[in-house]
Amino acid sequence: MRNVLKAVCISCGAAYEAGEHTYTCQHCGGVLEILYDYDYIKSVFTKETLADRDFTMWRYRELLPIEEGSELTPLRIGGSPLYRAERLGKILGLKKLYIKDDGLNPTSSLKDRASAIAVVRAKQAGMDTVACSSTGNAASSLAGNAAAMGLRSFIFVPERAPAGKLVQLLMFGANLVSVKGNYEDAFRLSAQAIEKWGWYNRNAAVNPYLSEGKKTVSLEIAEQLGAALSGSRLASGKPGPGFGKPEFRVPDYVAVSVGDGCTIAGLWKGFKDLYAIGFTNKLPRLISVQAAGCCPVNRAIKSGKPLEPMEENTIADSIAVGTPRNGEKAIRAIRESEGITVNVSDQEILASMRLLGSSGIFGEPAGATGLAGLRKAAEGGLIPEDALAVSVVTGNGLKDVAGAQKAAAELGQPISIPADMELLVEEFGRRNIRP
Amino acid sequence: MRNVLKAVCISCGAAYEAGEHTYTCQHCGGVLEILYDYDYIKSVFTKETLADRDFTMWRYRELLPIEEGSELTPLRIGGSPLYRAERLGKILGLKKLYIKDDGLNPTSSLKDRASAIAVVRAKQAGMDTVACSSTGNAASSLAGNAAAMGLRSFIFVPERAPAGKLVQLLMFGANLVSVKGNYEDAFRLSAQAIEKWGWYNRNAAVNPYLSEGKKTVSLEIAEQLGAALSGSRLASGKPGPGFGKPEFRVPDYVAVSVGDGCTIAGLWKGFKDLYAIGFTNKLPRLISVQAAGCCPVNRAIKSGKPLEPMEENTIADSIAVGTPRNGEKAIRAIRESEGITVNVSDQEILASMRLLGSSGIFGEPAGATGLAGLRKAAEGGLIPEDALAVSVVTGNGLKDVAGAQKAAAELGQPISIPADMELLVEEFGRRNIRP
Repeated sequence: MRNVLKAVCISCGAAYEAGEHTYTCQHCGGVLEILYDYDYIKSVFTKETLADRDFTMWRYRELLPIEEGSELTPLRIGGSPLYRAERLGKILGLKKLYIKDDGLNPTSSLKDRASAIAVVRAKQAGMDTVACSSTGNAASSLAGNAAAMGLRSFIFVPERAPAGKLVQLLMFGANLVSVKGNYEDAFRLSAQAIEKWGWYNRNAAVNPYLSEGKKTVSLEIAEQLGAALSGSRLASGKPGPGFGKPEFRVPDYVAVSVGDGCTIAGLWKGFKDLYAIGFTNKLPRLISVQAAGCCPVNRAIKSGKPLEPMEENTIADSIAVGTPRNGEKAIRAIRESEGITVNVSDQEILASMRLLGSSGIFGEPAGATGLAGLRKAAEGGLIPEDALAVSVVTGNGLKDVAGAQKAAAELGQPISIPADMELLVEEFGRRNIRP
Repeated sequence: MRNVLKAVCISCGAAYEAGEHTYTCQHCGGVLEILYDYDYIKSVFTKETLADRDFTMWRYRELLPIEEGSELTPLRIGGSPLYRAERLGKILGLKKLYIKDDGLNPTSSLKDRASAIAVVRAKQAGMDTVACSSTGNAASSLAGNAAAMGLRSFIFVPERAPAGKLVQLLMFGANLVSVKGNYEDAFRLSAQAIEKWGWYNRNAAVNPYLSEGKKTVSLEIAEQLGAALSGSRLASGKPGPGFGKPEFRVPDYVAVSVGDGCTIAGLWKGFKDLYAIGFTNKLPRLISVQAAGCCPVNRAIKSGKPLEPMEENTIADSIAVGTPRNGEKAIRAIRESEGITVNVSDQEILASMRLLGSSGIFGEPAGATGLAGLRKAAEGGLIPEDALAVSVVTGNGLKDVAGAQKAAAELGQPISIPADMELLVEEFGRRNIRP
């Protein structure tokens, strides 16, 4: 990989060759970060390069830690739509609001971007099996991408994992190991099994390449905004390759929900990459949104104290992470960006799901959490009304029907009547519905 | 609409101006079909026209029954991926198999293509409310597209509609009327309400414009195949606009599940349109796949007798339509194409879901039914092994978690053990799993 210089520990600074078996720091156990040779990248990757490429995450492959000519994922990962949200913007008091709907990825979450890197690197290294421990989107996304790539997958889940969440990965043919115990037990067993059998490790706790995949969401946002704001054919926010020489435009604020920390760290890396290769000349401020019932990252930033574990008390299960594995990376990203931390209640998350829905976008609780935080920040005067703001929807609402039912409960009971027009008219009257 | 000539009754031939209030035939109640002025279309729509357009259904707008300059849907409808499925093809005995995954539309089904036409036409006609009766994908798709367009929606469902299926449309802010009675009761009440209050009617039973939206799936398939087979950058089957002058290539066979009949009729219309404007020089043969427990369309074709209602006895609820509203249109399309009819059992549908999943594609039961039929046709020698065949996945597996759980049950119970490596090794041994 001529584009990658090395992998460096974010805790102690130890440097490693960026090979396929580099995971965490061998000295201190810290998380690694991938450093690129931007001079080399600039010599082979220009805006003109992009002109005839598909609108998927591989569009930006020179910025990704994969060998040139690697076999890429057959599934269409990335290239999700960025919508201009005028009506939502009015409600939030933001004149330039955009929503990036990453729930439209193949397995219906942003995690596909990370899993795509995992399976491409596994294949590149000649491995035939990938593994992780997770109960949610990472698991189904790894299972789906592995299946598409012709790899086997082993997924370790704690026994409490709801059956509905498991069915997607079962359909992808994953080998599912349900571990009697909690998430830590499942993680530990997966780590031992990965060590013993030499599987490719897609645990975000240790694999530094995953957030590199996630950064492609930022690359897309900047390119889509550039097209939209230059009045080109992408003006409606619809995706598609830029033609001729695409423009890149950095938003003022990007709001996203934070659980493990891997996603927001990846987001930041993407904007820094664009800056480093001269595609853009500014950086956004990140808005780190956590559930009030589980906000260890935001708490550490606010208090200036080290990360400490918290209870996992929120409806947004995808970000219910009491001990964030990439917390330090996340904290560094938020601080570097002069970011804002916002905690939101479960009620605010449910309200945000309804708000998104009112624009035709269906997000899971964690998917709507970014918007809930953006709303709170805007209403609290933390963001000027003419700021260019983007909220990332990280997962599809169909992933968590029970969560959506809680959000829908606030909307009141549906009308229930016999097939009789008089009764319908009466009922509309009683409920003050204009037919 | 200069591109549309008129609407003609497929039963008695009566012709109508194609205005916004044209639904069924005023003489005989038959379903109408939209006729285009292909000479005019050829004068304004060429392959070169496509070069700088987004890859969404609106790419082909000159072939759609909307006014020039109409406000289009904000959501990204269409532009779904077409995957080359080599491993699946080997299993089916087909050398050139492609899968079109329309479950990646914004509300996760192909129905978005029809609902998009409905909301654009409603807005164009100055109406602010749309309505339909349905329990499934049509309802949530109408609700989502209406919300995105700033329109109100009223959805009528029979009381048996499962809560899980309703939550998506509730999140989109639809006014939901649950009718005590069966589907016919819900349909009748919706028809009366639509008549009384003048809402835009998105019932596939009466609205001839819906299948015009659905035909865009064929236009995309032909363009994506053309790109893939000409060795261009779309060769991997990934979507994206064609550059320069796109090529169109018609498959030999297209398999799709059939319920109401509107989808397969739309598919056929799309291929006929391409032929009529000279973009292609052949037509495919349709493979109409129905559930053995509910196959009135296929039965009518096989027997040569008129359509007769059937029980709705299948797990694939999206095609459990005992009295198809667009059955005649479907039958005509299948016959014109010299098509093949295949009925599949629920067991074959569930097996097809697992087969799709093994390639990383998660379809709902009706979404996997097309592939089940293609498999049966290939195994039965009805299709030569070197045929170019496409199967359309019409809806996302997350739409029907219970259905997926039934399919997953065949895969056996997940391993369930304490966090202990020795037990894991033992269990792998017992199950003959190579770690």
